[in-house]
Amino acid sequence: MKKYAEIYKNELLNEVVPFWEKHALDKEFGGYFTCLNEKGEIYDTDKFTWLQARQIWMFSTLYQSVQNKETWKDIAVLGADFLEKYGRDPNGDWYFSLTQNGRPLVQPYNIFSDCFAAMAFGKLYEIEPKERYAQIAKATFENILSRQHNPKGRYSKIYRGTRNLQNFALPMILCNLALELEPLLGAHKVSEVTDSVIHLVMNTFYDGESGLILENVSDKGEFVNSFEGRLLNPGHAIEAMWFIMNLGIRKKDTALIENVERIMFQQLEHGWDEKYGGIFYFMDIKGHPPQQLEHDQKLWWVHLETLVALGKTYAHNQNPKAAAWFKKVHEYTWNHFRDTKNGGEWFGYLNRQGDVALNLKGGKWKGCFHVPRALMEVWKALEKTDL
Amino acid sequence: MKKYAEIYKNELLNEVVPFWEKHALDKEFGGYFTCLNEKGEIYDTDKFTWLQARQIWMFSTLYQSVQNKETWKDIAVLGADFLEKYGRDPNGDWYFSLTQNGRPLVQPYNIFSDCFAAMAFGKLYEIEPKERYAQIAKATFENILSRQHNPKGRYSKIYRGTRNLQNFALPMILCNLALELEPLLGAHKVSEVTDSVIHLVMNTFYDGESGLILENVSDKGEFVNSFEGRLLNPGHAIEAMWFIMNLGIRKKDTALIENVERIMFQQLEHGWDEKYGGIFYFMDIKGHPPQQLEHDQKLWWVHLETLVALGKTYAHNQNPKAAAWFKKVHEYTWNHFRDTKNGGEWFGYLNRQGDVALNLKGGKWKGCFHVPRALMEVWKALEKTDL
Repeated sequence: MKKYAEIYKNELLNEVVPFWEKHALDKEFGGYFTCLNEKGEIYDTDKFTWLQARQIWMFSTLYQSVQNKETWKDIAVLGADFLEKYGRDPNGDWYFSLTQNGRPLVQPYNIFSDCFAAMAFGKLYEIEPKERYAQIAKATFENILSRQHNPKGRYSKIYRGTRNLQNFALPMILCNLALELEPLLGAHKVSEVTDSVIHLVMNTFYDGESGLILENVSDKGEFVNSFEGRLLNPGHAIEAMWFIMNLGIRKKDTALIENVERIMFQQLEHGWDEKYGGIFYFMDIKGHPPQQLEHDQKLWWVHLETLVALGKTYAHNQNPKAAAWFKKVHEYTWNHFRDTKNGGEWFGYLNRQGDVALNLKGGKWKGCFHVPRALMEVWKALEKTDL
Repeated sequence: MKKYAEIYKNELLNEVVPFWEKHALDKEFGGYFTCLNEKGEIYDTDKFTWLQARQIWMFSTLYQSVQNKETWKDIAVLGADFLEKYGRDPNGDWYFSLTQNGRPLVQPYNIFSDCFAAMAFGKLYEIEPKERYAQIAKATFENILSRQHNPKGRYSKIYRGTRNLQNFALPMILCNLALELEPLLGAHKVSEVTDSVIHLVMNTFYDGESGLILENVSDKGEFVNSFEGRLLNPGHAIEAMWFIMNLGIRKKDTALIENVERIMFQQLEHGWDEKYGGIFYFMDIKGHPPQQLEHDQKLWWVHLETLVALGKTYAHNQNPKAAAWFKKVHEYTWNHFRDTKNGGEWFGYLNRQGDVALNLKGGKWKGCFHVPRALMEVWKALEKTDL
């Protein structure tokens, strides 16, 4: 498994990071272009807070964990200055998207904009300790906690009272975000937040009968037989498992780590497409047709986060099952998402059969994040292994 | 072309209508089940106002235009009683969805619920002239007109002022809805409403340079270079063309009819997939990657509405180009969407290659509407032709 460390490191440093350095920087208005075609050409200039924030985090992390390159810090600051200036509404909530020059386009309906902003400014503060970066991260994190039980606020279309659902995504993200912000929040606060969200993920959203994690359950934690209640998102669940594995290692909680590993394999086995390979995007736990028309597509982040989960598992316990699955998912992912013609960043969206379905390197939902983060995480996990 | 009339009539009366009569009726709570798998089995019991209303309209129309069968009227009333009782919020806006027993699930964020409700109660009033049906239709129509410039109201996520867009769907639907409601609204009101929306569709949303209709333009009617501004929906545009053809015939406006026919062919030629056949769901006018992951799928309604547009065109002027395209689209549609194994209603969602991608006959967005309406419209249009 150790040989993969070098492969992932090379791809990160020689292909993926240079792509974003070369094509994404808006030197005129600040921030990043993320809508880039296969050659890296800009096809849209709108700026999506998720992706602006994630690129700030990524370059801050590269600076911190890979090499203290000033150009990487400068790139992080280029995005942070833009988001600091234009990203928030008067309440301190983060807009979903902005024009190239920073005017708001879409309101703060989406709390994950805030999650990624907190993550970005928290990490930037670690490499560039300006107090205002810490303040932005902490205030945003507190705001997320205060909004967590009604994250969509006035933009929710749900009629309250008939079928109140809780969604898996926010607890899942909080598992990672709290740990990311530990230098700012302190160990006690991290334990407090993560203990409660670990419980939610591993008990409330985990369906013991099927062995799978549900995307939505009732406010009482029960299964709901509706489109939302039956929804599975294997990539989401697998990504959550490596977040919680990190927390388990921090807590030295062996039972939690074993539990997480077991559930991760269950999700992966259930989500794998035996016919064409790859992991489905969405599934219905009862096998009914999901409402998502794209349900059977193969998405980059699903596969990359699975590689991280498998790499971390193998690094932790050298389980041969993790090595076998890693090799299988690695083959599929590298053969289908990597752009052998143009190099650089990878493709993101394949149809069920594995052909590229959208000819882009970045867009509204894909930026400088899952590919480089996963390449780095796998490299770092596997370089410590013996074999 | 006349031979197709019989084929479409047979499919309507012997396959599609019996499917909905047999599987969709909720005799316990009223209304209809629309989430039906390939065998007609119910896989979800939620009730979506779009589809409840459309089935009321369809069975009222069958009663009015095909045969005065009491069972068809009873089916229309089964849905109407349910929607009348449970469908509206205290303002008279129509909820988007309800539980099986009528409790609201999703708020009235979607004005098309109201459009289809008005259409349903208007048509029902024609076959069952109870004053309250007329009142519901008229009040709902007035409400739509008053909401038309801000249809999403408080559920809109757009930050007003930066990039105000107007969307094509509501003017398009109003072209048809006003004509549907003529018995209730009177000829003068219909002309007033439709003259303004025809102008919008044919001038504001029609892009003269490309010859195509845009889904979104600025509030000043200009092209906007963004994901929304670049969006094309060929099926939408083609469906609008047959709505306006009906209006042109009503107005005896030959220039309008010729214009509509020309634009319809331009949309069809641009939307046709030369590689695999069929018409794309979404496209980007500049050829960039659209944000919709399902952009290259082939949807039932797109193809059926195209057959209506071509059938009506041919019936109007016997243009051989309409006959040739009708045959081509007919072959694709009948070979790919029709369920040769189980019969009944057709499949709705194919991947780009033409394979069934969702194994359902009805769902959240597909009910008893486009297949039977198109079969009826084509039958009625072509039975009057000589050849």
